[in-house]
Amino acid sequence: MKPLVLLGTGNGLGRVREMLLAREPELNIVRPDDADAQQAEVALCWNPVPGSLGMYPHLRLIHSIAAGADQIFKDPSRNPQIPVCRIVDPDHRLGMVEYVLWGVLHYHRGFDQVLRNQAWVFWDRPAQRPAKQTKVGVMGLGELGRAVASQLAALDFDTRGWARRAQQIEGVTTFQAGEIKAFLSGLDILVCLLPLTTETVGILGEETFAQMATGSVVINCGRGEHLNREDLLAALDNGQLRSALLDVFEQEPLPVTDPFWRHPQICVTPHIASSASYEVIAGQILENLARLESGAPLANEVNPEQGY
Amino acid sequence: MKPLVLLGTGNGLGRVREMLLAREPELNIVRPDDADAQQAEVALCWNPVPGSLGMYPHLRLIHSIAAGADQIFKDPSRNPQIPVCRIVDPDHRLGMVEYVLWGVLHYHRGFDQVLRNQAWVFWDRPAQRPAKQTKVGVMGLGELGRAVASQLAALDFDTRGWARRAQQIEGVTTFQAGEIKAFLSGLDILVCLLPLTTETVGILGEETFAQMATGSVVINCGRGEHLNREDLLAALDNGQLRSALLDVFEQEPLPVTDPFWRHPQICVTPHIASSASYEVIAGQILENLARLESGAPLANEVNPEQGY
Repeated sequence: MKPLVLLGTGNGLGRVREMLLAREPELNIVRPDDADAQQAEVALCWNPVPGSLGMYPHLRLIHSIAAGADQIFKDPSRNPQIPVCRIVDPDHRLGMVEYVLWGVLHYHRGFDQVLRNQAWVFWDRPAQRPAKQTKVGVMGLGELGRAVASQLAALDFDTRGWARRAQQIEGVTTFQAGEIKAFLSGLDILVCLLPLTTETVGILGEETFAQMATGSVVINCGRGEHLNREDLLAALDNGQLRSALLDVFEQEPLPVTDPFWRHPQICVTPHIASSASYEVIAGQILENLARLESGAPLANEVNPEQGY
Repeated sequence: MKPLVLLGTGNGLGRVREMLLAREPELNIVRPDDADAQQAEVALCWNPVPGSLGMYPHLRLIHSIAAGADQIFKDPSRNPQIPVCRIVDPDHRLGMVEYVLWGVLHYHRGFDQVLRNQAWVFWDRPAQRPAKQTKVGVMGLGELGRAVASQLAALDFDTRGWARRAQQIEGVTTFQAGEIKAFLSGLDILVCLLPLTTETVGILGEETFAQMATGSVVINCGRGEHLNREDLLAALDNGQLRSALLDVFEQEPLPVTDPFWRHPQICVTPHIASSASYEVIAGQILENLARLESGAPLANEVNPEQGY
């Protein structure tokens, strides 16, 4: 069987490989330095190094193992004739809701303090208040942001939403572009689910934090570039922010030397907010391998002009 | 005015006293060692010492300041003719929903591993699966259990409920007393919200754990006595259970020498799941004092045979 080559970094590729082999043991999955890698007809990618895609002359399919394929299109060596596919997981939205809900509850109920107290063998109830007295703001009201805001409102949080254009969501007070100060004013928890554009780069910075409640919390599930790192560290330092829960970073995996890892008020999670399950990923790849073989149209092919 | 006596331990009684006096400054609230304590017509209780309730011959009402009243029924000196009331807080339910939701999401999404990994500066995505593939069982379908099960079902968890008598909850597969094995079979997460009765003491034990999935999780928000401590430690040791999230203990605060504090697979929280706000507690006590005075039926009276 013609080999599939794994291109990129992170342990996700290894997990996908295991899951694929568990379901189709005869698959020939190789690494770039394996002898027959040159014969690969399929590349499975997670952040491939630019220049790597052009090294496989027999490729017939480039498959991202994630929802995004932007790193693939950044490789100038890619042959534009080869179709690029991505993963489209219906559970993606629910995964994001789960992640943000965990984060909001974690700080709202003081689980961060309780976990720290356990290490100190210290029985102490953090101050509690009802959800309706905790102000949570969601920036970005696309498919994910709307689902998150609705769920928070259903749990009785004082929920606000902000998006470029006016939106209506039941139980949520919404604001549009020019009303950002009113949106941020007094927030206890801010959740970023914005797309990355020139207008949103660095939006999680000093000006934003200054509008929020003293001792508030930031949760970033957008992109690493939304966050101004220096401003975050300063705001944690001077007490304007109490904590940050970060799932996305400019460089992933977050380098081991990054000070975020060891900051007691920063919780680093490895881009898990809305990742598809390995089962779903493996299933969609196997489906596309079968389609490639039979000549059927590929599923979830990316339009190179839109990038999704 | 006839005195109200405060019986028990913990700082909750003091907080309730403050809140009551803020609203009704003329109340005569006393401690057991105050001169006129013997004249008390009402006892406000939080874990009263057994033997203490019999010391007040003029009692007409015993009021728990919490949702549970089991400690009151353990006092053999109690005159069974005196009505016992408890607190039923609408925010209480939401507080419990929040706590259990945090706990279920914590283990379902592997945040326990992620937090540990951060300490080791280790970027590793825990295996993820959609909520509908995670089986969560709620034992006890009273007001709290029903609310918790409904919310879990709304988040798409494969949710089961178990109660003495048959129940119907939308989206939840329910079981009754004799069907406990079917209820437990293959559960990934078990949530205990049972009342404490002679039938439920020690129910979180070897026999129960053995029915659940290997590597599953127990969340106890019932009473400390629901848990068989030795069986829990053995099940964590042999891998039948992966973790336990415990909010209630036979002795509270949990003694500093208790091995639970330092067990890497046990998360100890200081009975925070559903404490009612002091505002609500005081309001319900004042309401029952007025009813006692006017001879109207008391609110939230406990049925001694059921214990709730």
